Amino acid sequence: MLIVGELINSSRKAIKAAIDAYDAETIKNVAKAQAEAGADYIDINCGTFVQDEEKRSRWLIETVQEVVELPLCLDSPDPKVLEAGLLAAGDKHQPMINSITWEKERFQAVLPLVLQYKAKIIALCMGDGGIPQTASERVEIATQLVEALTAAGVPEDDIYLDPLVQPISSADEAGLQTLDTIRGIKGLFPKVHCICGLSNISFGLPNRKLLNRIFLVQAMSRGMDAYILDPTDIDLMGTLYASNALLGRDKFCTKYLKAHRKGLYEKSI
Amino acid sequence: MLIVGELINSSRKAIKAAIDAYDAETIKNVAKAQAEAGADYIDINCGTFVQDEEKRSRWLIETVQEVVELPLCLDSPDPKVLEAGLLAAGDKHQPMINSITWEKERFQAVLPLVLQYKAKIIALCMGDGGIPQTASERVEIATQLVEALTAAGVPEDDIYLDPLVQPISSADEAGLQTLDTIRGIKGLFPKVHCICGLSNISFGLPNRKLLNRIFLVQAMSRGMDAYILDPTDIDLMGTLYASNALLGRDKFCTKYLKAHRKGLYEKSI
Repeated sequence: MLIVGELINSSRKAIKAAIDAYDAETIKNVAKAQAEAGADYIDINCGTFVQDEEKRSRWLIETVQEVVELPLCLDSPDPKVLEAGLLAAGDKHQPMINSITWEKERFQAVLPLVLQYKAKIIALCMGDGGIPQTASERVEIATQLVEALTAAGVPEDDIYLDPLVQPISSADEAGLQTLDTIRGIKGLFPKVHCICGLSNISFGLPNRKLLNRIFLVQAMSRGMDAYILDPTDIDLMGTLYASNALLGRDKFCTKYLKAHRKGLYEKSI
Repeated sequence: MLIVGELINSSRKAIKAAIDAYDAETIKNVAKAQAEAGADYIDINCGTFVQDEEKRSRWLIETVQEVVELPLCLDSPDPKVLEAGLLAAGDKHQPMINSITWEKERFQAVLPLVLQYKAKIIALCMGDGGIPQTASERVEIATQLVEALTAAGVPEDDIYLDPLVQPISSADEAGLQTLDTIRGIKGLFPKVHCICGLSNISFGLPNRKLLNRIFLVQAMSRGMDAYILDPTDIDLMGTLYASNALLGRDKFCTKYLKAHRKGLYEKSI
């Protein structure tokens, strides 16, 4: 199980304002809170700063690294921003790149960075034709991605396939397509990881946090083993630990019981 | 999706006291509450009344039928009690029998009742050797049960296999064995249903209700389509509707949105 803390993202209002004002204190607090809550990686995304994404990204990385000892997940569609970030992050930890796709141009631009920095890589199951609607098409793209990445020398254990999540409010079967994609990938490549964000699933519906939690459980039970989420969300983390224990992945329920003793479940029963 | 309301069970203190005192009012209220909350069947169990289970069961059935129009799930290990119950329930609705097993004696005693009353039948995946620990052994017993029941003339659609649930507190893999049993059964017999109670899974652990809810989601995502549960538990029912919508089984999320408008989620986010 690997948790990427998603909070340092300029699409969130408070973070955008903090980046805008070079308010290091706010960024540091959010980084520390995620680390304390159990994040394994800290995502760094300032994609809304189109003009100077590279500069803002470097500042974010340096600011976060002043207070937490965790590796970073560098999150940008722009290979130049990724490269600057990888350089700034240094070689103390194995970095993660978010993301590569099967779009020809993007694949060719990001692959050299994955190899040079021996990074973990999030690979979205989409190609030049956009996001495929069916699970079988996504599994086919996943297969091409895994084959091309491993042929280039990326270990299977460093690959995190994102099956992509679309809202059930726009298509009844949207959740099922994602779940079937996970099962398909895990059947073909048991050593490759599956990762996804959750919140898209509930777009346009009420009680979004509940839907996100339940979708997390469904994805886990199909083989998802990495998550981009808000680790400071107590209900979500409580669900994660409980689900893990129920799936037999928590020896003697140790982590679940520890979370309970720490009070994680006090508000969420 | 089929919901059997589990509350009228003499192992529950308040129900035991009500049966003991022939307190029809309490029983009627519990029956009505379950019907209003969405139960499809009302379970009738007075197994703790060893001396006069048959008589108490008849009284329960008549009492419940005075106030609700739902079919009943007759729940007893004793074929004589089942038979008296089936007679008392009448032929207005298709009854459900809880349960048959692959224990030779019990199978032979209960099968004639299933056939005579054209009942739905809950079949536990256990034989004369007790509850098998592994999923593959349970699937093997399930296969024998389905083959014997259908050979005798029971339609697949009337068979509800119970994969059996044991506490994860006693064995890390207990939940996984149940989940793998469901997947195995659904792979072999897509038309046969899977049913289970939930609460055993969390025995001996804190936050039991949360664990039960998460296990419900896991079981649903493997193909479980019937549940013995407390339909008046708002959080549990909220989880059920949300999970169903996420699995693409709720056209335009209609039932989920209706439950939301009725206030089902007000306390459970």
